[in-house]
Amino acid sequence: MGEFELLARLRERLPAAGNRVRIGSGDDAAVTVPGGATATSVDALVEGVHFRRDTASLTQIGRKALATALSDLAAMGAEPGEAYVVVGVPPDLDEDGCIELFDGIVALAAETGTTLAGGDISRAPALTLAVTVVGHAATAAQLVSRAGARPGDALVLSGEIGGAAAGLLLLQNPELATAVPAETTRQLRLRQLDPTPRLATGRTLAAAGAGAMIDVSDGLGADAAHLAAASGVALRIDATALPLAAGVAAVAATAGRDPLVLASSGGEDYELLAALGPGHLDESIREVAAAGETQLTRIGEVVGGEGVELKRPGGEIVTPAGFDQLG
Amino acid sequence: MGEFELLARLRERLPAAGNRVRIGSGDDAAVTVPGGATATSVDALVEGVHFRRDTASLTQIGRKALATALSDLAAMGAEPGEAYVVVGVPPDLDEDGCIELFDGIVALAAETGTTLAGGDISRAPALTLAVTVVGHAATAAQLVSRAGARPGDALVLSGEIGGAAAGLLLLQNPELATAVPAETTRQLRLRQLDPTPRLATGRTLAAAGAGAMIDVSDGLGADAAHLAAASGVALRIDATALPLAAGVAAVAATAGRDPLVLASSGGEDYELLAALGPGHLDESIREVAAAGETQLTRIGEVVGGEGVELKRPGGEIVTPAGFDQLG
Repeated sequence: MGEFELLARLRERLPAAGNRVRIGSGDDAAVTVPGGATATSVDALVEGVHFRRDTASLTQIGRKALATALSDLAAMGAEPGEAYVVVGVPPDLDEDGCIELFDGIVALAAETGTTLAGGDISRAPALTLAVTVVGHAATAAQLVSRAGARPGDALVLSGEIGGAAAGLLLLQNPELATAVPAETTRQLRLRQLDPTPRLATGRTLAAAGAGAMIDVSDGLGADAAHLAAASGVALRIDATALPLAAGVAAVAATAGRDPLVLASSGGEDYELLAALGPGHLDESIREVAAAGETQLTRIGEVVGGEGVELKRPGGEIVTPAGFDQLG
Repeated sequence: MGEFELLARLRERLPAAGNRVRIGSGDDAAVTVPGGATATSVDALVEGVHFRRDTASLTQIGRKALATALSDLAAMGAEPGEAYVVVGVPPDLDEDGCIELFDGIVALAAETGTTLAGGDISRAPALTLAVTVVGHAATAAQLVSRAGARPGDALVLSGEIGGAAAGLLLLQNPELATAVPAETTRQLRLRQLDPTPRLATGRTLAAAGAGAMIDVSDGLGADAAHLAAASGVALRIDATALPLAAGVAAVAATAGRDPLVLASSGGEDYELLAALGPGHLDESIREVAAAGETQLTRIGEVVGGEGVELKRPGGEIVTPAGFDQLG
């Protein structure tokens, strides 16, 4: 398979470039005119580490690679702009397979208004994707870092968590599927295989004055700790308030796992955790609901100190399993 | 090895961020305020495809990954701004090895004024680097694409070519080292292992009005063909004018290779090929020499038609070997 020939086939599948793009894929570099501030993030997905081709389709793998990168833009409140995609192609992936993978990326790019503006392709021992995304805002001040949470802020979480971890359990242990209805199994697996970047929610929260925001990719416990450390505050989370996805409790119970530990450790839910000043809370909940992507749940509060406390009803502390490993 | 701990060690080694960077490495995304046009490119290097750890040091591998990406910015005439680095870490690369690799990236970033503004790190079956670079210009019109060569333009090449291909031959066949003095062997190997992005030359050529420009990464023959196709013109190159690096002819002869075919096929020289309107030629040659990075050589001309013709003195055509393979 020739690189130039494959690139030509892939370029044919690209939709029209966004209006900031002056030169798209095919030159030495893409040329854009951002016109304000940019948020840039890069995410890598490696076969055997982040996905398996026997449980995810190539289209799903492509979508997820772009989705996880876009989730970081959502967590800044940025408008998605351009994506640059590196694919490492293993010996057993043929040209049609590359096209299938690419179609997943193209589809999510089209759904989110992202222009695929460049990339690189190489041979590799395992299927590898690295996606760089650039998002936009009128000014840097409109983008939300992890560092602005203040004592007294409310802590809110978008959507539901635990679904991706339960979905992974179901993919790895098909016998667990008896725990929940077939449609719930399907939905939980999709939470793992085809996550949705919360772009509209992130922009709504940024516009509503969120002081700090992060996407829950490493697990609520780990990501809450990142936000707390960056802001120099402590977070108190009420475990009973956590919005667990339907079926998580049943799958966890059948697998002999604590559902709260599973939901707060598992990661990959790609929901947004944000700190909101008390005056912004009710309005933000209404506006996120109105944006139609998902809903917000108040799960706790920001206090002085450091670290994260995740309390059960009786006062017992939930300790998320550590996920501080490469990959 | 923990990902967060390694990232913390790597971040400690980062020099201060450039003045366009509002939020650097460590948040969901880096925030920059470009203030004009941006040029963005991404390059991947995979162990066993682009380098071998038994012939290149980790520091060299890191430098080369950034250098090849920056070379694309040089070919646009952009000022280097930010870099985002993905590293796939194989099982046999320990934390100190990661630091060594990273130090190579940091050193070239410092030399070129590039801010390392983000990245991702993952386990991987082979050492893999994907580097995204963002360069800047006041306006998109100041950046030079491949598409603006016109009949009547002079074709110029920076520096010398063939050195990287001869260096690769010397790395793969140590017995060839008898062909040239030891210092020449060392220099040729460095052309392969530690290429220099021609950033000052590219900016000078852009300012001097180059109509089209490309970096010679796939080989002069292949890259000239890219420029010709993008511009809708033909290129006539005088093979006797090609500036071959010292020792290329001797290494090629000893290896039983045609030096002109080697130099025009080998790639990885990361020199710049540009088309200049006739009124700009002499001034550009002077200004590039004054910039002190390297010199320009006039190697041919742009004519109507399509394709690339590379002629020997007697009129015989040199046909570069095809390099249209993945990786």
